Amino acid sequence: MSQTLCQTILRELEAIRLVDPHTHINPHHPASTSLADILGYHYYTELVHAAGVAREAIEDPVLTARDRVGVLAAALPRIANTVQYRWLVDICQRWLGLEDSRIDAGNWEQLFDASTTRFASDRWADEVLEASGVDALFLTNDFDDPLDAFDSRRYIPCLRTDELVFHLGRSEVRARLEACSGIEIHNWSSLRQALEQRFTHFVSRGAKACAISLPPHFSPGTISDGRVSTAIDALLQHGTDAHPNHHRALAQRVFWTLAELCDTHRLPFDLMIGVNRRVYPAGVYQGQDLYDSRVSLIQYKDLFNAFPRVTFPISVLASVTNQELVSYAWIFPNVVTCGHWWYSNTPTYIARDLTARLEAVPQSKQIGYYSDAYKLEFIAPKFSMYRRVLARILAEEFVLQRSWSEDQAIALGRDVLRGNVEKIFGV
Amino acid sequence: MSQTLCQTILRELEAIRLVDPHTHINPHHPASTSLADILGYHYYTELVHAAGVAREAIEDPVLTARDRVGVLAAALPRIANTVQYRWLVDICQRWLGLEDSRIDAGNWEQLFDASTTRFASDRWADEVLEASGVDALFLTNDFDDPLDAFDSRRYIPCLRTDELVFHLGRSEVRARLEACSGIEIHNWSSLRQALEQRFTHFVSRGAKACAISLPPHFSPGTISDGRVSTAIDALLQHGTDAHPNHHRALAQRVFWTLAELCDTHRLPFDLMIGVNRRVYPAGVYQGQDLYDSRVSLIQYKDLFNAFPRVTFPISVLASVTNQELVSYAWIFPNVVTCGHWWYSNTPTYIARDLTARLEAVPQSKQIGYYSDAYKLEFIAPKFSMYRRVLARILAEEFVLQRSWSEDQAIALGRDVLRGNVEKIFGV
Amino acid sequence: MSQTLCQTILRELEAIRLVDPHTHINPHHPASTSLADILGYHYYTELVHAAGVAREAIEDPVLTARDRVGVLAAALPRIANTVQYRWLVDICQRWLGLEDSRIDAGNWEQLFDASTTRFASDRWADEVLEASGVDALFLTNDFDDPLDAFDSRRYIPCLRTDELVFHLGRSEVRARLEACSGIEIHNWSSLRQALEQRFTHFVSRGAKACAISLPPHFSPGTISDGRVSTAIDALLQHGTDAHPNHHRALAQRVFWTLAELCDTHRLPFDLMIGVNRRVYPAGVYQGQDLYDSRVSLIQYKDLFNAFPRVTFPISVLASVTNQELVSYAWIFPNVVTCGHWWYSNTPTYIARDLTARLEAVPQSKQIGYYSDAYKLEFIAPKFSMYRRVLARILAEEFVLQRSWSEDQAIALGRDVLRGNVEKIFGV
Repeated sequence: MSQTLCQTILRELEAIRLVDPHTHINPHHPASTSLADILGYHYYTELVHAAGVAREAIEDPVLTARDRVGVLAAALPRIANTVQYRWLVDICQRWLGLEDSRIDAGNWEQLFDASTTRFASDRWADEVLEASGVDALFLTNDFDDPLDAFDSRRYIPCLRTDELVFHLGRSEVRARLEACSGIEIHNWSSLRQALEQRFTHFVSRGAKACAISLPPHFSPGTISDGRVSTAIDALLQHGTDAHPNHHRALAQRVFWTLAELCDTHRLPFDLMIGVNRRVYPAGVYQGQDLYDSRVSLIQYKDLFNAFPRVTFPISVLASVTNQELVSYAWIFPNVVTCGHWWYSNTPTYIARDLTARLEAVPQSKQIGYYSDAYKLEFIAPKFSMYRRVLARILAEEFVLQRSWSEDQAIALGRDVLRGNVEKIFGV
Repeated sequence: MSQTLCQTILRELEAIRLVDPHTHINPHHPASTSLADILGYHYYTELVHAAGVAREAIEDPVLTARDRVGVLAAALPRIANTVQYRWLVDICQRWLGLEDSRIDAGNWEQLFDASTTRFASDRWADEVLEASGVDALFLTNDFDDPLDAFDSRRYIPCLRTDELVFHLGRSEVRARLEACSGIEIHNWSSLRQALEQRFTHFVSRGAKACAISLPPHFSPGTISDGRVSTAIDALLQHGTDAHPNHHRALAQRVFWTLAELCDTHRLPFDLMIGVNRRVYPAGVYQGQDLYDSRVSLIQYKDLFNAFPRVTFPISVLASVTNQELVSYAWIFPNVVTCGHWWYSNTPTYIARDLTARLEAVPQSKQIGYYSDAYKLEFIAPKFSMYRRVLARILAEEFVLQRSWSEDQAIALGRDVLRGNVEKIFGV
Repeated sequence: MSQTLCQTILRELEAIRLVDPHTHINPHHPASTSLADILGYHYYTELVHAAGVAREAIEDPVLTARDRVGVLAAALPRIANTVQYRWLVDICQRWLGLEDSRIDAGNWEQLFDASTTRFASDRWADEVLEASGVDALFLTNDFDDPLDAFDSRRYIPCLRTDELVFHLGRSEVRARLEACSGIEIHNWSSLRQALEQRFTHFVSRGAKACAISLPPHFSPGTISDGRVSTAIDALLQHGTDAHPNHHRALAQRVFWTLAELCDTHRLPFDLMIGVNRRVYPAGVYQGQDLYDSRVSLIQYKDLFNAFPRVTFPISVLASVTNQELVSYAWIFPNVVTCGHWWYSNTPTYIARDLTARLEAVPQSKQIGYYSDAYKLEFIAPKFSMYRRVLARILAEEFVLQRSWSEDQAIALGRDVLRGNVEKIFGV
């Protein structure tokens, strides 16, 4: 009964059209041009590298797209157990005519050829969006993105702020900020103006969120005007060589200012908490970051208290942090649970974390899932994974254990999958 | 088969009468007088607030009980997914004639009216206890509670000591201690005498436990007589403004002394580990506390070693600490697992934590559950939630996976639900 | 369907012959001589002690083997719920004719007598190995083990290095190192030579791994020649009384040197991360160690980066660390997941940790399980527990959820149970 029930609920969830609240899609090139774009996703390069293929063999600049697919495909049997491989199979079955679930040295050429043909269509991006049931999706835009020449109702801008908070010591980052804002940065006051200018620009172009990823040790707090002035002087003079204390003080103050600007401009501020960058610097591109699971939302207490009108959709990198996220969202009106991020985006962690959220966080405060995709083709398989987990929980914990009707369970699924995204981000 | 088996075991567990080893019941007003008492429980006020209702709207002092219920009920659909809402439905179905599982703007008045009628009976508290299968329950008594005018065999006193450990800097706390003990506190020796007097008083009135909740950073240790004298001098002189080191030293020494007195008086010492108070000071009453899950029982190593004759029933606030609790209870004779506390008191965390306990902690050392209730009506729905989880684990992990007989499984359930409470607390 | 499927997969997994990659077997006395050896395993003595039997009663030196079994057996009903008790029942059913699943005061004498008869056979060790399907197993050898007079193809040496890293302050440890290496240790250079000599000895005798257990606070790093010289001078002069900083510096440098020697000799370096020794010093023998779950693999970042050619099979003591292990193994080519250690070696933690590994770590990088056994009789029941969990996950998550064929699922099981042990350790 549970299996049938689960299937019924899953079918209903599959009919819900999506607004994907976090991706890395390039709106000018949203879809893949060949299987090389698919297999070039860091999940495949890093897993294949971890399974023993040298980075040089994967990233060799002389390789053609076809050859790179060949290198990666030959190693796929070593990662055939992973859920990431399962996404790949899903893509190849959906769009490249794969019939079984094997992709390896024996059939990659056929799939590659199918991809170049299929993906060449002018309408390919539209086809993928349509077949994936996607109405709109959020981008991840650099602070100096002009945000023009795309439909911002479909491709919704989101101001990504990691560089502004953590890399203002780099002269090229400051130069880019000066260039795009038209404001010369020579002290805190002018830096703040530049930040304000960026918010105005983004909001005027349809941005619906501000976002940042944060290392485990980061803890927001206030920094006085005097202290931040000293810090910015040091960074303007010594750049990345300035004392770490100055970098920290400026990061704190810029971060706090972003929260103020989110308040002013009524933007939700997506916090993605817990990543350590470049832990494995010899790893493949985008396959170098890891984390320290010893992080706590208590570090964000002052922020949550200081900005009651700013909504903070929060993603946590380590599943162990999920219980705190549940508890903080259950108490703080401005804390919202958001998706299943990166190393926690596999079925077992989704299942654990989602079950805990569904039974203790108000249903209006849960943003179920985002794809984090770089190419449109990944939205469907990732959401499919999520929907299966969601369907199983709704069936077992709500319909069977709590005697909910199927309709009630599906309505809860709809809020989590779609309704809350609309309400929380105002899209 | 598993479903039927589960139901059979559940029926047997439901027949076991309870001694609830931890509540906040007021023995002089143990039951609710209307639905306002039920909905006034912090689980509802905090969830409704977190879901967007202003604290002012919920706590407005001019509101009548009826109006307050109206405010809260209107927002209930936003938290209808939570297990706390499920407890509420259970209460309304058991005692207020609710037939479906919806409580909202459309039917709250009817339920409110039913509650004022039903709860007005002189025998209401007795009826609830009887219908809930409760023989006795533990209280949470302030240190200066006279403990008179109630039946201490049914309402078992428990000395709650948070104020003694953490708030002796407040002059009103010291004044209360002096008043109830009849001992003027002017140094460590007189403070210790006052503590002893309180233990004598509590034990003479039938107390069966001492209890405390502890913040994540607390780590018990010894403090010399000289050091504690300096500390108490500082607190007597400067009160809450004394240097934090003095507060810490006194807290450590008082805590250690409580353990000594538990040893002398043969009282178990309930430790509830991990809460940070007032993390969200703008939250509703009792809806302000959270935690930092980065806590370890290694912090309690010296305590467990120093007091081998004191039993420590331990509750942990974060589920991640449960594995340490399991391991410490598996090694230390004086460490006992105790219930599922607060943010870990939802079905998924109970299931995870209980499964781990049942397979590795001696069955004589597990206190399964307590309600933590403020009003009698909550004991039944909370234990019902627990019994369902327990029945599922006994059916699946013991009967199906380990080929136990149903009788064996039910006997294990009985130890955990009732037998161990009797043995460990001597009731 | 799921039950039948699970049984089918389990049968296939049970047919896979084993190489057990970590045990504490003594190759000269690999099997038990009576039930006293079985019940003397620390899992029973510590659980029975934790359940209330005094250490003195368990460890009284005047007790005969028979009497000691009597003492322990009488307390077994208190731990009959534990999975460790389940291993014991399994042993008694397999080899001592137990028919039901009760072992207590009523039948222990019969079982004891059966054990002395059965275990007395000259061929007992061979019989156990054969009945358990074990082709070979890894030992845990002290650094000064001569490694002679046993078949190192069946009993594979592994150099255990805890003493070399953490206890060179003890004069007897240095004396043993000097004696076995023939090198007088008077400075870092001679110490390093002695370490090299030990690796040469071990590799020449068939060692296939180096191993160490590490406390939660340990974080590998480099130490200069000058600093280590000062440290070793201090330890040679003051022994265990040398300043902790010197102990730490030497531990770091010796540990790093072991990694260098693993690199040179192409030995995997097993890291068992997270144990605090002697947390409960009044506990029974081997029942005194616990942990602090606040540990992170970020502490090992420099090590993993510095030794890309050394494979690190990693065991973590706390289940919470498993997600980091999964993530690090998914990125770092030289990090391999290894077994389910000690306090995480119970079905619920195995299930959680294994599910996460199977869905995100390349299948070529997972060493499923080791028994950690001190006596051969424990290999079968422990692997049996693991195989059941593995079969359930393969059936539910791979065959049912991901539509794998049974053969595919079994092949994955074979890699994890056997194939990867062969490939990673080169046996």
